[in-house]
Amino acid sequence: MSSTLGLSWDQHHLGQEVQMGSVARRSFASENVVNRDHALPNPSWNKDLRLLFDQFMRKCEAGSWKRLPSNNHSPQSFQDFQTRFVDPKLPKEQISQARLFTRSFEDGLGFEYVMFCNDAEKRVVCFFQAGPYLQGAPGFTHGGAIATMIDATTGMCAFRAGGVVMTANLNINYKRPIPLCSVVVMKSQIDKVEGRKVFVSCNVRSVDEETLYSEATSLFIKLDPNKKLA
Amino acid sequence: MSSTLGLSWDQHHLGQEVQMGSVARRSFASENVVNRDHALPNPSWNKDLRLLFDQFMRKCEAGSWKRLPSNNHSPQSFQDFQTRFVDPKLPKEQISQARLFTRSFEDGLGFEYVMFCNDAEKRVVCFFQAGPYLQGAPGFTHGGAIATMIDATTGMCAFRAGGVVMTANLNINYKRPIPLCSVVVMKSQIDKVEGRKVFVSCNVRSVDEETLYSEATSLFIKLDPNKKLA
Repeated sequence: MSSTLGLSWDQHHLGQEVQMGSVARRSFASENVVNRDHALPNPSWNKDLRLLFDQFMRKCEAGSWKRLPSNNHSPQSFQDFQTRFVDPKLPKEQISQARLFTRSFEDGLGFEYVMFCNDAEKRVVCFFQAGPYLQGAPGFTHGGAIATMIDATTGMCAFRAGGVVMTANLNINYKRPIPLCSVVVMKSQIDKVEGRKVFVSCNVRSVDEETLYSEATSLFIKLDPNKKLA
Repeated sequence: MSSTLGLSWDQHHLGQEVQMGSVARRSFASENVVNRDHALPNPSWNKDLRLLFDQFMRKCEAGSWKRLPSNNHSPQSFQDFQTRFVDPKLPKEQISQARLFTRSFEDGLGFEYVMFCNDAEKRVVCFFQAGPYLQGAPGFTHGGAIATMIDATTGMCAFRAGGVVMTANLNINYKRPIPLCSVVVMKSQIDKVEGRKVFVSCNVRSVDEETLYSEATSLFIKLDPNKKLA
């Protein structure tokens, strides 16, 4: 699934509040993450992530970039999602526990990240700190965790340019392993849009941008408001 | 990073016990997951996962298949990993909290899975139940969580055939979204081995195998015992 969909979790969760009654209220009561903006510094952010955050917040003041809160809402996509949500076969008790994958860890243990977009240039930058629970090889970040953040970043890039989208293809070249607990800079941009297809590329580099960790391309499909997801 | 490396986490963690002294002991004390075999049924497994598990355990008795415990050890890979582990720059306090990404959630909330291998046919099958913390779009499994399990399954397939490997490429076509909290069948096989390159393919289907959710190819590189990971 496109992480664009996932990244709008808070918004849809609120939609569930309306739709799902007690189940959603249990969920609401059991998680204080629903209305929280996760894309702001917390005590687990290391020096690199804070410096990058401050640097881009200054760019935001200059007007070319915009920080993307995790609970960023879009009326259009909200409506689109609502038309797709809820498979009646899903076990309600478990669904009431649902959390967006990239925000399902306690602060600092999993995915710590903030995204900034430059809509004029059709670019999204993500600063990602890989927590200790994302380990693959000893001391290094799991390839699946890297794939997850690439999907999230390119998905947001496609969403900014094309509205509600779903991941159709994700192609990642892993050049070098990413040390666990380090921060990486993920830069994505729209390569082209053909009808409902949105082509996005992304590279993952070290904070000093001298080390290229991964390169990826993603293909997203704009969702048809008249069709359900599955 | 190859999830093959990741999947051997327990083994390497024990290696750290030897190497890292107090840090490793803290880690050991803080996690009872170190020696636990996660690839066995727990109360969170649904009926589908239990049925598939029982079905393949019977195949294991017949001799053609083998269940792969999460703490599966391999003397050769153990030594290879030890020669690569620990970047001195890593923050020890955080590294002491490190957990294998695919086993970092409480039972039932994240990745619940068991893998079986058929070495004669160079195949690995993974039965995966996507917990509620792996959500992407409301009611569906995050594309990054699917990519993670594809990396894990194809990585194990490559490991069984080629020893210690690292993911070089992961190319995933997402055909249909996977309902959250459902179980999928992931089948991987070695396509070819060229020198240090191991080519693996994988498909993800519904339990009745009638729905094709995803198709993927992975390229893994056998690690050179004389070189470090980074």
